[in-house]
Amino acid sequence: MSNDFVLAIDMGGTNTAMALVDEEGRILGTGNIPTTGHTDLNAYIDAIYAEAKSMTDLRGDGRCLAVGMAAPAANTITGCIDGATNLPWPSPIPMSKLISEKFGIPCILGNDANGAALGEGVFGNARGMDNYFVLTLGTGVGAGVVVDGHLLSGRSGFAGEFGHVTIERNGRPCGCGRKGCLEKYCCASGVVTTALELLKKDSDSLLAEIDTDKLTSKDVYDAAEKGDALAKKVFDITGEIIGMACANFAAFCDPEAVILFGGVAQAGEYLLKPARESFDRHALHLYAGKVKFLPSGLPSTDAATLGNAAMAWKFLNENS
Amino acid sequence: MSNDFVLAIDMGGTNTAMALVDEEGRILGTGNIPTTGHTDLNAYIDAIYAEAKSMTDLRGDGRCLAVGMAAPAANTITGCIDGATNLPWPSPIPMSKLISEKFGIPCILGNDANGAALGEGVFGNARGMDNYFVLTLGTGVGAGVVVDGHLLSGRSGFAGEFGHVTIERNGRPCGCGRKGCLEKYCCASGVVTTALELLKKDSDSLLAEIDTDKLTSKDVYDAAEKGDALAKKVFDITGEIIGMACANFAAFCDPEAVILFGGVAQAGEYLLKPARESFDRHALHLYAGKVKFLPSGLPSTDAATLGNAAMAWKFLNENS
Repeated sequence: MSNDFVLAIDMGGTNTAMALVDEEGRILGTGNIPTTGHTDLNAYIDAIYAEAKSMTDLRGDGRCLAVGMAAPAANTITGCIDGATNLPWPSPIPMSKLISEKFGIPCILGNDANGAALGEGVFGNARGMDNYFVLTLGTGVGAGVVVDGHLLSGRSGFAGEFGHVTIERNGRPCGCGRKGCLEKYCCASGVVTTALELLKKDSDSLLAEIDTDKLTSKDVYDAAEKGDALAKKVFDITGEIIGMACANFAAFCDPEAVILFGGVAQAGEYLLKPARESFDRHALHLYAGKVKFLPSGLPSTDAATLGNAAMAWKFLNENS
Repeated sequence: MSNDFVLAIDMGGTNTAMALVDEEGRILGTGNIPTTGHTDLNAYIDAIYAEAKSMTDLRGDGRCLAVGMAAPAANTITGCIDGATNLPWPSPIPMSKLISEKFGIPCILGNDANGAALGEGVFGNARGMDNYFVLTLGTGVGAGVVVDGHLLSGRSGFAGEFGHVTIERNGRPCGCGRKGCLEKYCCASGVVTTALELLKKDSDSLLAEIDTDKLTSKDVYDAAEKGDALAKKVFDITGEIIGMACANFAAFCDPEAVILFGGVAQAGEYLLKPARESFDRHALHLYAGKVKFLPSGLPSTDAATLGNAAMAWKFLNENS
């Protein structure tokens, strides 16, 4: 076992988190710089480099072999950040090239869903699988889809936009301008919408005590944990929809497993059980009963870091 | 340009058609043997070999480099025929191995949809594309999906079963035991069902003159060609459904083009135009207006042959 490691960078609008991660997924060191406040883009890159250097200098031996980086509006094909509205530099930003040139090692740029999919494949619950997808259930809904060992990219890097598959023809209006997108039922605010719909008909719930405009999906989970029937029903409905949607996704990619990831997926079996049952009821016989529904295998506090590290390690393994 | 070629084999329940095909898609020779009537499986393989030898002996120079073979119930991953009800030999039949050993060259076993997808990619309307899918609209509905230059297989070779995606929750009953599958609206008999539904409400059509139990999708096409409004409306409805379904498929794989293939697709623009328009209305902004809807680029009489040859040529190109 070598002492080599990769650098994982998670670039947010205000903060850029960094970590050194070895091939086993151990986090060897962490760092942090502000994303904003630099004189120009080069100053930001220099600040990343300086912080990384102070982190790696603490490591006696071992080399940094590659960088895996997640950024808003990252284009995985071009390696550019293109159209991020909350960054102070003009688009497109050739981030992969800039980091790679500064560090003298490869830099793989990805987005959250790519990182989640590869993180599960390298360090999490999809280890050893060649066919699976990760549904990211958070503020929005996305997916990273691995088929035949390959993370799907598509023509412009937009493969796996499962959040915008129509599941109800005249359903809830979506921010994308269309109706009935999966996202509107399974993201954090979608879970809240479902809870509010149920509360209108039935106020016998712990959730009735919370201001409707302050209700969160976490509240629904907490109520379910306390045995609240209405809260459990919210997850039953959400899981039913996820399972039905996944029945169609399976016809696309014939997966071994579906992994539910992100904030809403913290509901665990409250969501996984109805999703699994709904899938088996709705899927074609080729898939029904044959697809595992699993929680994320990454510790939630380090999921993004491990996802970014996985992008780097997968690149290294495929190009060694 | 070399004079080398591949052998394309199309194994049906009664007949096995064979052809020699060069790298440009030229058919250099054809042959035929019965599938049934052999003393055992080895005798069938021997008969294929003898027929191929008589075909290749006519070619002065050039070598046969590989075999591309389509067969019922072909498992592309194992190279076996597994569970074909109309063949006299016990399953699984290790067809790829048997042919490969007899000929001393690689044999790639595929199914119709695989062949259609690679045929379009190597010789047809998807030449030069890395992201597209071919919808096969015939007795049933299937798909061959190419993403990032790779034909999707999935865990058990069942990726691309687009015919069994649910498009209408309580829709037409399907032979698979479920309801509302895409296949029931877009296969040949689905088109006829739609025509009969319209004829119940409106008998002002050339199709009203045909016995309802003899009506075919070809009749609907012929009537449309004669300007029959009801027949055209049948294709409008079918195309609308195809476009809507493809809007969801695009969110999977971010394609450059969709190719409509097979008997029903012979309707050409009667089907392509409403499909394209429906797609652009239903798809997410990332895909709307950006996906080509194309007819097959393979001559219909040789489409299966060229598809099988393409499987062999693609294998050779990727392993040379």
